[in-house]
Amino acid sequence: MDNIPMIAAAAGLAGLVVAFLLYQQVNKVKIDNDKVANITEEIQKGAMAFLFAEYKVLAIFVVVVGLALTQLNDMNTAIAFFAGALASVAAGFSGMRAATSANGRTTMAAKNDGKAGALAVSYNGGAVMGLSVGGLGLLGISLVAFWLGAGDANPDLSAAAGFGMGASSIALFARVGGGIYTKAADVGADLVGKVEAGIPEDDPRNPGVIADNVGDNVGDVAGMGADIFESFVGSIIAAMIIASSPDFGPTGFDGASDYIMMPIMLGLIGYVASIIGVFSMFVLKNGKDAAAALRNTTFIAALLFWAGGYLAINLELINVEIGVMHSVVLGSVVGIAIGLITEYYTGIEPVFGIPTRAIPHIGEMSKTGPATNAIAGLSVGMMSTFIPILLIAVGIFGANHFGGDDFGLYCIAMAAMGMLATVGVTMTVDAYGPVADNAGGIAEMSGLGSDVRAITDELDSIGNTTAAVGKGFAIGSAALTALALFAAYTAAVGADNLDLTLTNPMVVIGLLIGGGLPFVVAAMTMTSVGKAAGDMVVEIRRQFAIMRESLSKDKSFEGDLEDATTWPEKVIAGDMTYPDSQTCVDISTKAALREMVGPGVVAVLAPVIVGLALGADALGGLLAGSLVTGVLMALFMANAGGAWDNAKKAIEQGHIEGAKKGDDAHEAAVIGDTIGDPFKDTSGPSLNILIKLMSIVAVVLAGTGQLV
Amino acid sequence: MDNIPMIAAAAGLAGLVVAFLLYQQVNKVKIDNDKVANITEEIQKGAMAFLFAEYKVLAIFVVVVGLALTQLNDMNTAIAFFAGALASVAAGFSGMRAATSANGRTTMAAKNDGKAGALAVSYNGGAVMGLSVGGLGLLGISLVAFWLGAGDANPDLSAAAGFGMGASSIALFARVGGGIYTKAADVGADLVGKVEAGIPEDDPRNPGVIADNVGDNVGDVAGMGADIFESFVGSIIAAMIIASSPDFGPTGFDGASDYIMMPIMLGLIGYVASIIGVFSMFVLKNGKDAAAALRNTTFIAALLFWAGGYLAINLELINVEIGVMHSVVLGSVVGIAIGLITEYYTGIEPVFGIPTRAIPHIGEMSKTGPATNAIAGLSVGMMSTFIPILLIAVGIFGANHFGGDDFGLYCIAMAAMGMLATVGVTMTVDAYGPVADNAGGIAEMSGLGSDVRAITDELDSIGNTTAAVGKGFAIGSAALTALALFAAYTAAVGADNLDLTLTNPMVVIGLLIGGGLPFVVAAMTMTSVGKAAGDMVVEIRRQFAIMRESLSKDKSFEGDLEDATTWPEKVIAGDMTYPDSQTCVDISTKAALREMVGPGVVAVLAPVIVGLALGADALGGLLAGSLVTGVLMALFMANAGGAWDNAKKAIEQGHIEGAKKGDDAHEAAVIGDTIGDPFKDTSGPSLNILIKLMSIVAVVLAGTGQLV
Repeated sequence: MDNIPMIAAAAGLAGLVVAFLLYQQVNKVKIDNDKVANITEEIQKGAMAFLFAEYKVLAIFVVVVGLALTQLNDMNTAIAFFAGALASVAAGFSGMRAATSANGRTTMAAKNDGKAGALAVSYNGGAVMGLSVGGLGLLGISLVAFWLGAGDANPDLSAAAGFGMGASSIALFARVGGGIYTKAADVGADLVGKVEAGIPEDDPRNPGVIADNVGDNVGDVAGMGADIFESFVGSIIAAMIIASSPDFGPTGFDGASDYIMMPIMLGLIGYVASIIGVFSMFVLKNGKDAAAALRNTTFIAALLFWAGGYLAINLELINVEIGVMHSVVLGSVVGIAIGLITEYYTGIEPVFGIPTRAIPHIGEMSKTGPATNAIAGLSVGMMSTFIPILLIAVGIFGANHFGGDDFGLYCIAMAAMGMLATVGVTMTVDAYGPVADNAGGIAEMSGLGSDVRAITDELDSIGNTTAAVGKGFAIGSAALTALALFAAYTAAVGADNLDLTLTNPMVVIGLLIGGGLPFVVAAMTMTSVGKAAGDMVVEIRRQFAIMRESLSKDKSFEGDLEDATTWPEKVIAGDMTYPDSQTCVDISTKAALREMVGPGVVAVLAPVIVGLALGADALGGLLAGSLVTGVLMALFMANAGGAWDNAKKAIEQGHIEGAKKGDDAHEAAVIGDTIGDPFKDTSGPSLNILIKLMSIVAVVLAGTGQLV
Repeated sequence: MDNIPMIAAAAGLAGLVVAFLLYQQVNKVKIDNDKVANITEEIQKGAMAFLFAEYKVLAIFVVVVGLALTQLNDMNTAIAFFAGALASVAAGFSGMRAATSANGRTTMAAKNDGKAGALAVSYNGGAVMGLSVGGLGLLGISLVAFWLGAGDANPDLSAAAGFGMGASSIALFARVGGGIYTKAADVGADLVGKVEAGIPEDDPRNPGVIADNVGDNVGDVAGMGADIFESFVGSIIAAMIIASSPDFGPTGFDGASDYIMMPIMLGLIGYVASIIGVFSMFVLKNGKDAAAALRNTTFIAALLFWAGGYLAINLELINVEIGVMHSVVLGSVVGIAIGLITEYYTGIEPVFGIPTRAIPHIGEMSKTGPATNAIAGLSVGMMSTFIPILLIAVGIFGANHFGGDDFGLYCIAMAAMGMLATVGVTMTVDAYGPVADNAGGIAEMSGLGSDVRAITDELDSIGNTTAAVGKGFAIGSAALTALALFAAYTAAVGADNLDLTLTNPMVVIGLLIGGGLPFVVAAMTMTSVGKAAGDMVVEIRRQFAIMRESLSKDKSFEGDLEDATTWPEKVIAGDMTYPDSQTCVDISTKAALREMVGPGVVAVLAPVIVGLALGADALGGLLAGSLVTGVLMALFMANAGGAWDNAKKAIEQGHIEGAKKGDDAHEAAVIGDTIGDPFKDTSGPSLNILIKLMSIVAVVLAGTGQLV
């Protein structure tokens, strides 16, 4: 059993090699179209430029926090913190590199090889990211476990929390920064291009579309990768810290080592299962239904993972209660169920034959204008929180039941692992979506024609369906991981030093303040998107005015000055060429870097300030309060945004009687969709990370012994 | 000290007599204008018809729940429940009767006697409500205390919770029903009248305006009256139950009787101070600044109340720690501070010289359309929750500090009393607002001219400013009252039977479910408003079509068919006269009655189901969870709604550079205002009551001994 960390590390490394080979596979596709090549390069350049600029800011943050940790804690925590931050950066970077290579090549494959070829390229692009995130996570956490002597009797694993904190900090900045970047560009480009000028989405005349496509990568790929990476290592760390607590297990229990190793064991089994799942696509894709094939890769991996986990216990490779695996399975089931409920509240198609009601409701309310559309979307979002919350409660209840009095909290952490262990394949499917989406944008901008666009649209819509389940996993696992980290916090402070009863006024104070923080971070991130989008609107309007002015003097121009769709793709005014994408890329980049600092600092400092000023009880309350409102607000915002988006699409596709593209109801639905943009892609996802980051900061702080 | 309940009851009765005399005073104003008389009568008729219809539904609910209580509890709780429901109904009814008499008479006074006369009538109308709510509360709770022998050694006061539950149930139904009624009418009338047809607000040609004006009364007057009544008695009951717990005070403490009596004593002092405050208006109103006069009545009452409280302790009329009064004062200060913060986030004018930033921000974001306006309003609402939450935390911290280990929870309940004891005068000022608002509507509908309208507008705007502080009190006191009721719940279950630590999974499950309930109730009420407003839109459009059709055949009609402002006030089509206000009144009435049932049932059943199915620990978690998210969501929704409303007004009044009435930015702001309507007047206020109602249901349930 002592070998588990080294075997896991080896598996992680092997997976990274596989990811690299897949990356080379992707790069083998030649781009033999200049426009596609140029746009692909421009997007990749923009994305990389943003990442490097972001990393510079993060480096300062990491150094400052790392130095503070060396002062407060032992050196080990600081080292683990650096390692966690570095691993997270590596995961985000490699995924984004792959995605920004795969997008244009998917477009090319769609043109040259048809749907099967395009599917293969985009899927491989996603797989690079999936296997990188899983492999780096497994490798990193295994090395940390080995280094801290996790297999020894009574190991001190508190420094492992530093690894999680490093990963979480990067994740929050990446999510917030990426989310602001992408939505500033998206909202700005849509408001001026689609709404004001009436040109299609991704039209090459719109200077904001490159930034929009860059944004898809830095937000949905790099941001999401860092997010999932952090959940994965966070759940493992929480379980390990709980199991290493002196109070763990029944009185006189001496089998804790196996429980400490179990999460790494499960990470290993899940990762191997994921690799098999990823490669099963090469067989499955020959079937007719690509969506089913994609879905089945995740099911195959999950089944293999469950079988492997039960087998490991039955073969006594590891000596833990069987209830641990029951909890793991329950966690997966809850995650899938949350995904289906998400689909029910945000999807157009029936879920298991049950017709959805939310989208028709929003569609109907769009007919009386944007105000009633907004009211409907907000209420759908709020209502959609309840069943997921009940499902999470069922997960907690069941895991606690399986664990009994002695292993209840540990089993709750294990339920989170159930959603995360097969991250290699679920992340693959998640990352596939933005690649296909980007491929469609590139096809549009390159003017490749409607048949290519039809292929990429189909791939994109498959991605959207599978993404709903992925979102369910993200939120469900965030809730359980945060709860597990909360338990790790109580273990780290020590039960004797804590009074976490709800009748303790300090706990109530913490609960209230913690409850308020997700509202603050949601508000900050929404304001940032709004401001940055406003800057973008001004810039795009400015360029359109210059283009119009220049065309008005151009005798050879035969189009209509007031109808942008008749304009040429390039306009030369003075010694500049318009559209000038670079200024828009710069606006998004600067806004994202400037605006991501505030929420990040709030998340890191809030638990420190409350913990030091008000004590460990209040900090415990803060974690619980932020957990409750964070999960609810994340569900509310993500689902409201998703529902608005699909209500608009439902009208466009003719699902809403008496409404169609271009009429007043559609216009109202477009407005709702725009309100939902920062909801679903910036603020909502940020909250998932916020609650985990604050929890792990609290665990680290508890390790310093500074809390009373 | 044994005489306190009887003295308080006598004071309550005396206050009711004063209220009745003021009501007669209001009715002395003669309405010598037929139009004003007709419209006033129509509004009063509509409001009364709604109230009676509502009471019929409530009667069924009260009988069913009352019978259930006789089965579960002792008969006393059931009797107290009936009494509480009856007292709440009486408070709502009398206030509404006064308000619907005072509105038209204020209009007349504005016409015949000018501003001073109009101010006097509207203020007296508000005072009837204020003194009724305070008087009925004090009378009711004093009689209950006397009946249950509150002055005896070790009294069993658990039945008193029944009184609170009766008041809370009525309050929730009244708030939800009234809120749906008023916003369905408001949103529907505005969308078709103002936006589509371009006729002014309160235009007599709009069939929805009578319903809109009725709605102001059933929502803002009757609904708010029941709400405040319930807070007032709830905080008294919570403190009494805490003080009557066997664990109360230091070991061997035998002075609990004085602590049990203290809230009634404070209620008495506060009520007397309120009456003096109300009558001080007759002196103050001779000053130049009506707004300052209004504000000063509440300050005079507060100062007298504080002085009276300290005096009672110093003169040893009652034997409690002085820290109790410190907590009371702290509670008032926190309430005022929350009001000022509300004003900062939702107001146009500087607060204490600090220029507000939220309204200019929303105004600015309106220029890029309704989507960015909505994003800005939502983020302002979310951000505005944080300082109030911190202030509530300060209130809890301070009160707990003043109370020390022995009286901490009791002092938290007392802090709530600090916000509520002078309810007689604060409610007067609150109720004055809708009376002035209605008076303006009646002036408009009666075509009384701009000079009358100018007076009513000025009175209305004074009401809006003072209302902000009232809202702060409502939310702050709801939070502290719910917390006090939570403490009463733990006392009722008994500390030995509870494990409310946050590491108990059942507590976490309860916390999550409880946290979700405010989202559910907010969603239900918003959906109801949306649906009912949709029905209203269809009906008003139908009538406009009939009127247009009829006018097109009318040779004598000389106006423009497409311009509704040129239409006559009455159109006869067939044997019907249009506009037909009654159909709109019916739509609002039916929608309100139908839609109020769901949220009410959820609020009453949720704690019962969770308590019986999952036990007392989970129920405790549920209360804490709903408290946290309920307060946050209430603040978020109320302030977002208020900010949207004032952003629109700021544009109309020329405060936003580059935007003005009628332009695109203004249109975007009107849309935001409409989104905010159900936020601030239906869902938000409902949540205040929800958290108190669930808490008091839990206290009653605990009294049954059915919880493990």
